[in-house]
Amino acid sequence: MTDRLSAQFAFLNEADRLKSVLRGTTLCDGSRRENSGEHSWHIALYAMTLAEHAQRPVALDRVIRMLLLHDLVEIDVGDVPIHSQDGAAHASRETRAAEARAAERIFGLLPADQAAAFRALWDEFEAAESDDAVFAKSIDRVQPVMANLESDGGTWPEYNVTPEQLESRVGVKVRRGAPALWEGLKARIDAWFAARD
Amino acid sequence: MTDRLSAQFAFLNEADRLKSVLRGTTLCDGSRRENSGEHSWHIALYAMTLAEHAQRPVALDRVIRMLLLHDLVEIDVGDVPIHSQDGAAHASRETRAAEARAAERIFGLLPADQAAAFRALWDEFEAAESDDAVFAKSIDRVQPVMANLESDGGTWPEYNVTPEQLESRVGVKVRRGAPALWEGLKARIDAWFAARD
Repeated sequence: MTDRLSAQFAFLNEADRLKSVLRGTTLCDGSRRENSGEHSWHIALYAMTLAEHAQRPVALDRVIRMLLLHDLVEIDVGDVPIHSQDGAAHASRETRAAEARAAERIFGLLPADQAAAFRALWDEFEAAESDDAVFAKSIDRVQPVMANLESDGGTWPEYNVTPEQLESRVGVKVRRGAPALWEGLKARIDAWFAARD
Repeated sequence: MTDRLSAQFAFLNEADRLKSVLRGTTLCDGSRRENSGEHSWHIALYAMTLAEHAQRPVALDRVIRMLLLHDLVEIDVGDVPIHSQDGAAHASRETRAAEARAAERIFGLLPADQAAAFRALWDEFEAAESDDAVFAKSIDRVQPVMANLESDGGTWPEYNVTPEQLESRVGVKVRRGAPALWEGLKARIDAWFAARD
């Protein structure tokens, strides 16, 4: 095996560990917590299905690649649930620094040209400035809301989440990239909280 | 929510069930069986990382979309391990018919234009004739071999798999789309069986 192929396989074998990183949300049927590997697949499928709702034109293939890569740093850092204390503070400086170190290590397993290309996509996603990244971020935030709606509120009761918090923590960011998706979700969110009161 | 968006979310919520379909292979660390959702993520990442090894030029974005979709039919039909009796017979006629019905039902949840587009990609993958589909099929077969190698043979001892069977059931198909990948794997496979003797 060439050194190049060995490096690529080393990266792909390391990536396997993302399947053991558990997220705050559960599967739609509530049977167990979701892991970040299957989440990454699901949101790539979300992007593929919902691309027409992007606020601005996007290159879907770039969006999908960002989403496939974006959680790999959690292999070292773990998932930071958006409604946890750290998540609500938009990820502490320490978390961001740890994620950057993780990106360095994990993408660094690849041959140098690919390490740079994959890292650039991850940096672009994290910066959330390009149209592709803004839409990718929106999609990443839509799927957990839907999982919570499907599993009778999921983690919302546990974290005492209010509709106002959903609007400020999630809605604002989803609206940036895909306002039509948030409109659709909001109707379901309001109905869920209304039924619970 | 528009009917169109409702249909898209219905499809995406149904897709969630793929995370509960278990495969024959385990995670690389052997801790548990892999599910088809996380497998679909991993092979999309494989394609993104290994595209340069394709035997013929491919449109990587089409390959990735095929891989994201290709296992959805398992929600209805389950996974057929390649070394099982049915898998070794290259999937019985009954399995193929059941998968076609599953594709009809699951893609049929989408708005008609998307149902047709996604189904066409799935049909192309299944036909294994286009360059994109041939490479996608190769990638789908590389990842389980690597998972078995990483987990000390994984399911090979259970199914009494020989290197010759790997060559005929897996190698022939991987070679079609990505001969360099099979060369790399074969060296590791031979080493694994040699160490076991």
